Amino acid sequence: MVESIPSYRGDEELARLLAEAGAALSLEETKTLVAGAAAAPPGSDGWTHLVAPDLTGALDEQLRALRAASIPDDGLEDRAALPARLAALRAELERRALAGFLLLVGDEHHGEYVARRAMRLAWLTGFTGSAGLAVVLREKAALFVDGRYTLQAEQQVDAALFEHRHITNEPPADWIAAHLKDGEALGYDPWLHTLKEVERYAGAAAKAGATLAALEDNPIDAIWSDQPPAPIAPVLAHDLHYAGKSSEAKRTELAQALRADGIDAAVLTAPDSIEWLLNLRGGDVPCSPLALCFALLHANGTVELFIDARKLAPGLREELAPDVTPRAPASLGDRLGALAGRKVLADPELAPAWIFHRLEAASGRIEKRRDPCLLPKATKNPVEIAGARAAHRRDGAALVRFLCWLEKTVPDGQVSEMDAARYLAERRAENNLYRGPSFETISGAGANGAIVHYRVSPESDRTISPDELYLVDSGGQYLDGTTDVTRTLAFRKPGGEERDRFTRVLKGHIALARAHFPEGTTGPQLDTLARRALWEAGLDYDHGTGHGVGSYLGVHEGPQRISKLANDVALVPGMIVSNEPGYYKTGAYGIRIENLVVVTEPSSPPGAERPVLGFETLTQAPIDRKLIDRTLLDAEEIAWLDGYHASVRESLTPLLEAETAEWLGSATRPLDAP
Amino acid sequence: MVESIPSYRGDEELARLLAEAGAALSLEETKTLVAGAAAAPPGSDGWTHLVAPDLTGALDEQLRALRAASIPDDGLEDRAALPARLAALRAELERRALAGFLLLVGDEHHGEYVARRAMRLAWLTGFTGSAGLAVVLREKAALFVDGRYTLQAEQQVDAALFEHRHITNEPPADWIAAHLKDGEALGYDPWLHTLKEVERYAGAAAKAGATLAALEDNPIDAIWSDQPPAPIAPVLAHDLHYAGKSSEAKRTELAQALRADGIDAAVLTAPDSIEWLLNLRGGDVPCSPLALCFALLHANGTVELFIDARKLAPGLREELAPDVTPRAPASLGDRLGALAGRKVLADPELAPAWIFHRLEAASGRIEKRRDPCLLPKATKNPVEIAGARAAHRRDGAALVRFLCWLEKTVPDGQVSEMDAARYLAERRAENNLYRGPSFETISGAGANGAIVHYRVSPESDRTISPDELYLVDSGGQYLDGTTDVTRTLAFRKPGGEERDRFTRVLKGHIALARAHFPEGTTGPQLDTLARRALWEAGLDYDHGTGHGVGSYLGVHEGPQRISKLANDVALVPGMIVSNEPGYYKTGAYGIRIENLVVVTEPSSPPGAERPVLGFETLTQAPIDRKLIDRTLLDAEEIAWLDGYHASVRESLTPLLEAETAEWLGSATRPLDAP
Repeated sequence: MVESIPSYRGDEELARLLAEAGAALSLEETKTLVAGAAAAPPGSDGWTHLVAPDLTGALDEQLRALRAASIPDDGLEDRAALPARLAALRAELERRALAGFLLLVGDEHHGEYVARRAMRLAWLTGFTGSAGLAVVLREKAALFVDGRYTLQAEQQVDAALFEHRHITNEPPADWIAAHLKDGEALGYDPWLHTLKEVERYAGAAAKAGATLAALEDNPIDAIWSDQPPAPIAPVLAHDLHYAGKSSEAKRTELAQALRADGIDAAVLTAPDSIEWLLNLRGGDVPCSPLALCFALLHANGTVELFIDARKLAPGLREELAPDVTPRAPASLGDRLGALAGRKVLADPELAPAWIFHRLEAASGRIEKRRDPCLLPKATKNPVEIAGARAAHRRDGAALVRFLCWLEKTVPDGQVSEMDAARYLAERRAENNLYRGPSFETISGAGANGAIVHYRVSPESDRTISPDELYLVDSGGQYLDGTTDVTRTLAFRKPGGEERDRFTRVLKGHIALARAHFPEGTTGPQLDTLARRALWEAGLDYDHGTGHGVGSYLGVHEGPQRISKLANDVALVPGMIVSNEPGYYKTGAYGIRIENLVVVTEPSSPPGAERPVLGFETLTQAPIDRKLIDRTLLDAEEIAWLDGYHASVRESLTPLLEAETAEWLGSATRPLDAP
Repeated sequence: MVESIPSYRGDEELARLLAEAGAALSLEETKTLVAGAAAAPPGSDGWTHLVAPDLTGALDEQLRALRAASIPDDGLEDRAALPARLAALRAELERRALAGFLLLVGDEHHGEYVARRAMRLAWLTGFTGSAGLAVVLREKAALFVDGRYTLQAEQQVDAALFEHRHITNEPPADWIAAHLKDGEALGYDPWLHTLKEVERYAGAAAKAGATLAALEDNPIDAIWSDQPPAPIAPVLAHDLHYAGKSSEAKRTELAQALRADGIDAAVLTAPDSIEWLLNLRGGDVPCSPLALCFALLHANGTVELFIDARKLAPGLREELAPDVTPRAPASLGDRLGALAGRKVLADPELAPAWIFHRLEAASGRIEKRRDPCLLPKATKNPVEIAGARAAHRRDGAALVRFLCWLEKTVPDGQVSEMDAARYLAERRAENNLYRGPSFETISGAGANGAIVHYRVSPESDRTISPDELYLVDSGGQYLDGTTDVTRTLAFRKPGGEERDRFTRVLKGHIALARAHFPEGTTGPQLDTLARRALWEAGLDYDHGTGHGVGSYLGVHEGPQRISKLANDVALVPGMIVSNEPGYYKTGAYGIRIENLVVVTEPSSPPGAERPVLGFETLTQAPIDRKLIDRTLLDAEEIAWLDGYHASVRESLTPLLEAETAEWLGSATRPLDAP
């Protein structure tokens, strides 16, 4: 799928085409915009229209050519430069009279995916995991990661530059308290830390008689000369046909709730909250249709949207008016200042400390409370649920084509993990509502399948042997829904242990899928159902059982969660969550069975005294019969599996070509059929 | 079992006998001590020895006679006096220039059972429930109780005196904020509230511009002229044969942990913690062998014990020396003051606010942390576990005699709820290690069984009809362990609905009893197993599934708990918890099946990768086969039940007379036996 890009014919030609198209932007402005577009993930549609709504083919071509030529070398892969970067940071700290600097993975929005300009920790240390913290002092530096990333950090980060620490067993707060000296100041970027984190580290610094200093600008940005600009991808309206509820209706309801609590405004810092509220979608980061932005929701239902206005698709500003006003991101501070004396809601677990500092400086009354969009966003409306069903059906057809192909080609020993991931992506891309993957596909054969956060790379890629298990966890972003599915496959008759483990995971999956529970039940109350069959054998898995999933938004969203960890959010009808128990044998194989499910209100059993909730399974794909030890399943479990397979077959067959349909028919036949 | 008490022959005779016995106490001192003994629950052994270790029979007789004559009329039952008491309190508040007073159920130790002198809320309002709060203002007053007690409060408390409020739906903080006026002061007794509570209400008062005022003495005590004195019951050493670990070993271990955290001392305010730590038992409150006291555990392992020294059994002071020093309770403040500059641990959920205020005034550094005795106390040692098994075996024999008698006599229609409770208590009392009930027996027939916290009284007592279900929840305090067991019985063939509900409760009970789980698992993670069969039918129960149980200590203890509510304490081998799912149909019947279980480490299944924990059931008593719908049980559940019944039969038969043994044999025969 290599796109052919014409060559760039120079600034003069571009200037001519811009003038011809009547573009409002100058050549310089256009080149800056294109640099931003080049900093966005590839594949965002229609960005050239941001230059001129009615552009000619020639201008479109030249813009794309310029973009291709502008993809920056941000230095993120240059490992040889790491010692010099650390030295440069220390020099910068010295200039600023700081004893050190605290640097966390992540950006101002505390989401899962970030633009490359925000990958400061990777640029400084080489560590590319999704969670971690570095503390750089004048003489010492340490990197703190959790158990998922210990091995990766060892491989990626030079221990001569950064001590390696386990973030829970050897908390950064202790290290800070031990190594800071009386009177010193440890700098941090208040945009990158939540208030909770700042309070924790401030306490640690205080133990050493030192202070934590909020910096006006990030010292990494000062020394990262090739740092990409902020990404520019078009922001589009998300059609009511998919969103199911108008932004006006959403804003009116939230505003009413704010007024009822005497709150004057809410600061929204999570792009998925803002995009849900305003029925917008963007493309600034990979895998999630997000436009990076902030917003202020006022108690009268109006919104100030702090966003680079160049990103707004032609006509969108007019669509948003009059209740939603785009403003320059840099004006957020002034607008918070204008709320002096007002009661302003901000989420202490989500919003940057900067927001709180600014509100405090303005003597605003801060109401620390959960982002008010989280719960309504998590609770899908009927249109979103219908969209999810439709998206899962099409996603299922792509998956079945992939599974059928795998089963036919893997035995020849010619399919690698990357080949498989590519083939699956191509099948999904055949769908015209498909907008890209919802996360990087995990395609792991044998021992690679046992690495829970495995990402296939050219270095780790291996041929899938027909004698080992293969685990594939993938998902798609469709205009009508987000999918996330894991299947574990055997290509020849698997061993007894693999079948025992797979069947225990399946029993857990079925127990959760079939669960009935009263209103008010939370995810952690159900988590044990998914683990019980493993626990009985002295086995378990070290990840959660279920995460929330957005509606053409993030593939991981809160506030509900099914896991061992405390979570006080009751499951309510409309919430979409994953059901993904697993089992991992390090160095050997990994097993996970993941479907998305939506919380429903099944009809109450006779005699029921309380409203009963349950799950409807959305994901449509066969579960590998070869891996099932039938003797471990009871009659109800077999009935569930056969019923699920029958519904998959019935739903997908009309979408499939004959050969694939035949394969699906066999893959979904009743468990006791020959 | 009425004890015959000789009559008191006058002070002169008593003075003569005291002199004859060489008692160290004067007549006046003796009479004060006897008044304290009269304020303790009946039945505490050997209190007369507190007067003179070697007393004559005649002196013993006269002391007991004087005690009987001294049982105070504390006015707690005098409902006619309630309006005058409220008026007297308001007059007292006016004298003190207070706008109101905040009064909570409970005493300084925040335990389940209190001395009668601490039943201030009952004395003021008439409400006798175990949880509740009154706010008395000059013009208005309100009583706040939870859902368990709404009905009881309506029956006991005159709504003309106290508005009735639901403590969670209509939080006292809101009422306080709404009714206090700017500049007013709301008084509270800082001994009776934890710091957390005080902070909550202080915030509420602040909303109204008012303040919360910690009072030096309780205004109720100032107006309750018949308030009993503090109870005096003998404090005895708890033999190592039962305790399993010396106080010195316990103190050494805890002190080591304090030193490791740089803590200089821990304030202990929970009598059961102190009695566990020092291997002592007392008798100041009903149902729990507790001596009311406070303690300071120092980082060198020594303890200052703040207790009325008159309670110490002869010779105990010498046994405690030199590491444990009794001190007058009134000296606690001075001793806390002496910790100026030291780091002192106190439990913010358990210790009175007074403790924190005193430490703050002394500029102590306060380490707010869980009472360090809670976890080791909850984790029984092998001797305590062996004791629990032995106690449960003897308790089971008493229970079986009771169940056999019930089944033979109830059909004649002559047994009342009170008769049944009395018969059971008598069977337990035949055991020479028995020291009394571990809580007030719940003996409820038909609709009374559906009242979760039902206590039979002469007014509510009814004959047990052979056509209704009967629920009995009871327990005993034995020197070697504390028991707590519930059985639900049918005397004739019960209806299909009762059998369906009972069997679902049983399925939950079995699922929990059979659970295997990895280290680190908490009670809330297991709670759902006990509810699942009910949830499937749209049913549930509104109480926890399991509470910790002490070793000849409180029948309810933490820190672990199996419930829907968050609890982060991992279950560890040695913890004793109850397993008590239930089902309640208001106005009709109640079902509960409760055994105590101890967390164990069963042998790991082959292939286990993680240490597996499970439960051993301690309680020995048949589960009523008549109430089981066999078609709802699977083979594993039947195997568990038959195995349990076989072990009950095997364990108890040697203790039983032939007729009872025969009944037990039938009651515990396999489910599929005719």
